[in-house]
Amino acid sequence: MAAITEHISDSSTARPETLLALKERFGNRYQDGKSIRQQHGHTTTWITNQPPDAVIFPESTEEVVQIVNLCRESRTPIIPFGAGTSLEGHLNAPQGGVSLDFANMKRVIAVNAEDLDCEVEPGITRKELNSYLRDTGLFFPLDPGADATIGGMAGTRASGTMAVRYGTMRDLVLSATAVMADGSVIRTARRARKSSAGYDLTRLMIGSEGTLGIFTSLTLRLFGVPETILAAVCPFKTLEGACNTITAAMQMGLGLARIELLDELQISAVNNHSKLTLPETPTLFLECHGTQAAAEEQIDLFRELAESEGGGPFAWAKRQEDRNKLWQARHDVHWANLQLRPGAKVMATDVCVPMSRLAKCITETHADIQANGLIAPIVGHVGDGNFHVCVLTDIDNKEEISKVAAFSDRLTERALAMDGTCTGEHGIGTGKMKFMQQEHGPAVAIMYALKTALDPYNILNPGKMIALK
Amino acid sequence: MAAITEHISDSSTARPETLLALKERFGNRYQDGKSIRQQHGHTTTWITNQPPDAVIFPESTEEVVQIVNLCRESRTPIIPFGAGTSLEGHLNAPQGGVSLDFANMKRVIAVNAEDLDCEVEPGITRKELNSYLRDTGLFFPLDPGADATIGGMAGTRASGTMAVRYGTMRDLVLSATAVMADGSVIRTARRARKSSAGYDLTRLMIGSEGTLGIFTSLTLRLFGVPETILAAVCPFKTLEGACNTITAAMQMGLGLARIELLDELQISAVNNHSKLTLPETPTLFLECHGTQAAAEEQIDLFRELAESEGGGPFAWAKRQEDRNKLWQARHDVHWANLQLRPGAKVMATDVCVPMSRLAKCITETHADIQANGLIAPIVGHVGDGNFHVCVLTDIDNKEEISKVAAFSDRLTERALAMDGTCTGEHGIGTGKMKFMQQEHGPAVAIMYALKTALDPYNILNPGKMIALK
Repeated sequence: MAAITEHISDSSTARPETLLALKERFGNRYQDGKSIRQQHGHTTTWITNQPPDAVIFPESTEEVVQIVNLCRESRTPIIPFGAGTSLEGHLNAPQGGVSLDFANMKRVIAVNAEDLDCEVEPGITRKELNSYLRDTGLFFPLDPGADATIGGMAGTRASGTMAVRYGTMRDLVLSATAVMADGSVIRTARRARKSSAGYDLTRLMIGSEGTLGIFTSLTLRLFGVPETILAAVCPFKTLEGACNTITAAMQMGLGLARIELLDELQISAVNNHSKLTLPETPTLFLECHGTQAAAEEQIDLFRELAESEGGGPFAWAKRQEDRNKLWQARHDVHWANLQLRPGAKVMATDVCVPMSRLAKCITETHADIQANGLIAPIVGHVGDGNFHVCVLTDIDNKEEISKVAAFSDRLTERALAMDGTCTGEHGIGTGKMKFMQQEHGPAVAIMYALKTALDPYNILNPGKMIALK
Repeated sequence: MAAITEHISDSSTARPETLLALKERFGNRYQDGKSIRQQHGHTTTWITNQPPDAVIFPESTEEVVQIVNLCRESRTPIIPFGAGTSLEGHLNAPQGGVSLDFANMKRVIAVNAEDLDCEVEPGITRKELNSYLRDTGLFFPLDPGADATIGGMAGTRASGTMAVRYGTMRDLVLSATAVMADGSVIRTARRARKSSAGYDLTRLMIGSEGTLGIFTSLTLRLFGVPETILAAVCPFKTLEGACNTITAAMQMGLGLARIELLDELQISAVNNHSKLTLPETPTLFLECHGTQAAAEEQIDLFRELAESEGGGPFAWAKRQEDRNKLWQARHDVHWANLQLRPGAKVMATDVCVPMSRLAKCITETHADIQANGLIAPIVGHVGDGNFHVCVLTDIDNKEEISKVAAFSDRLTERALAMDGTCTGEHGIGTGKMKFMQQEHGPAVAIMYALKTALDPYNILNPGKMIALK
């Protein structure tokens, strides 16, 4: 037991007996070295590393049930872990406990091509899934940037660049298998496309950040690979022009697959990093999916709308090579941004507002960035009203961190004042817990009631989102 | 009090004091005449009429809060009532109590054209909403057939003919205001298109059939009226041919707005009732929305797919007049079916299965219909795998009712065995409660826990969906 107790964190509520039992049960799939614990207690933001007491690599639903049952007896926290790309401290272990790393649960259980769906284990990443699907003519469209796991994306209700056309994880998960805090294994829904039979447990679980249950499989909607994919870039004189164009396109039901906004500074960073020569003004990156004729018509209609709002010249990326270069540049904004201030790290945050408020929200945020001398490019999935601010920050400078945190808080307040949400796709974790009351008011009490009903001993990712008192 | 007590049903759990207090508070908006009570305890199926003790017509969220608080004290059941078009006994009052009729809450609170959304009170019907929106260039697409209220559609997670393109109520409700059993008023979400902030209370409430809270406003997604709407009819030699065509169209991402299947008997009934001359074989009714070019391309592509599966000849309805005639015929199937057996009533039921199982499920159901000598046309929203069977039944003949009920049970068992759901869009009510366990297994216990947590005194539509023991 000595070997176990010396690894238990100061703030841990885990019991040594439980950890010992888990170690005996899982052998070398139970790891409690300092380095692996720190890897699993990390965060990509400024939230302090809070390592779990141990990391376990389960390989089946039954093993997850065993872990939950052992941990429940001693009130030992359990934190599901995917690819470790979350941004708001979802994976930290503020009360210790065990991190469940799903790296050994990556199987594709079934692909039902006729039904346009598949069932996978939660540890598979979106890129791994799309590699697997390559010869089927089908694909899973959601793309949150990072190569996150499907389980992690379900846990945070992720979305990304293609959500404007294909929906978010809320829309694309048909059903889930989950181990609940009482050790029961539920399947949240049948595989039918829709149902009116009972409470929507699928949606309740999606976005619950591991606080209500642990996914062990997910059934996902798939789509046929489009016959034609066209991409284009369109610079605008003003942010309002770009936003008005998007609103008009949405009203026309153009069905664009991607509409990404990059502000001047973001374009400048992208030009430097990806050796592009885009005009340094607010710019939309677009993508259309469909038949050749339909995709071309969409692009043409969008160009007309853009031109009437001062947008242009319009540059097509017709060849796949050019298209890949464009989207690679979009995906590389993180690395591009790091070059804006060598040595600094990116503090990424996101909000989402109704479309009609987007231009004002971004404009006011720009003014805030300038007034405070921050280096902070903006990039957004603006067809949904969702944007990210990436603040280049010296994370060894506490004063600067406070300043950036205050900026992030003002951004959130601004979005909430516009009937927006404190996070469009990153989630609450610990980073945005303080805004739950402001955003949801009396609905937070309902969320507490749900959490208490399903996890009365508070063993599932405790201290996150809904921190029981 | 004598006047109150004589109206209390035998099985009522309502207290006379509560009813008296409500009568005093609401004056002539409290009604307890036999006729209005029976109207509100009715059902469009074979489930026996179970009238509430009284009907109240609230006019604001605050009034609903007052009713909930009064009823909670005495454990008096509350049943929200919209247009009374539900099919599974959702509106019956098996334990008495008060029916809340939302006929006086029909306001459109806001239309946010730029955001493609609106907020309405629950008592407005979908047709009333679309009349209101007529001059805005926007529309609300969901069409469950009946002119149901938005509140009722939200409560049962309704969908209908356009769900294959626009989604179901699950997808189109952005946010709801709800009065909960503890008297608190929550707003389930902000007006942003997406959010990762907290549990998805919107989706938890949608489809909860009034058992978790009472809607007092709903924020809905709207869509631009398409530039062009094209409709077509395509007969098939076989059911499999029709189903294969749909699968191929979905894989191509054709984005059809409606794909309705009518079987031979249904076409025959429609021909008689609506004076059409359609070939009496399995037939698809289609609709495409988009630009002229896009809609024409969709129809052309669909025709090619259909022809390769033995479908055709393809008949377009290019003029609005022809299109209206076609869809009116589709919507009039209920009346058409009644003519198949004068004096009988329609027992309507629905199931939903994965697309790949649809042909087999319908074929086996046909065989069952024939083997049992039933008159039962089939019509379905087959792009979702959802279909209805309308059994013409002599509802004064108990033996026949048992036979039809047994057929309906076999249909449900068949769908469940194919990983389908016992109801795609009608809901559970009391009619399909017995299948909850079979469909959901251990997940039913989770639903019980949620219901108990949010409505511990079981005052919200008790005895439905999740009947607490």
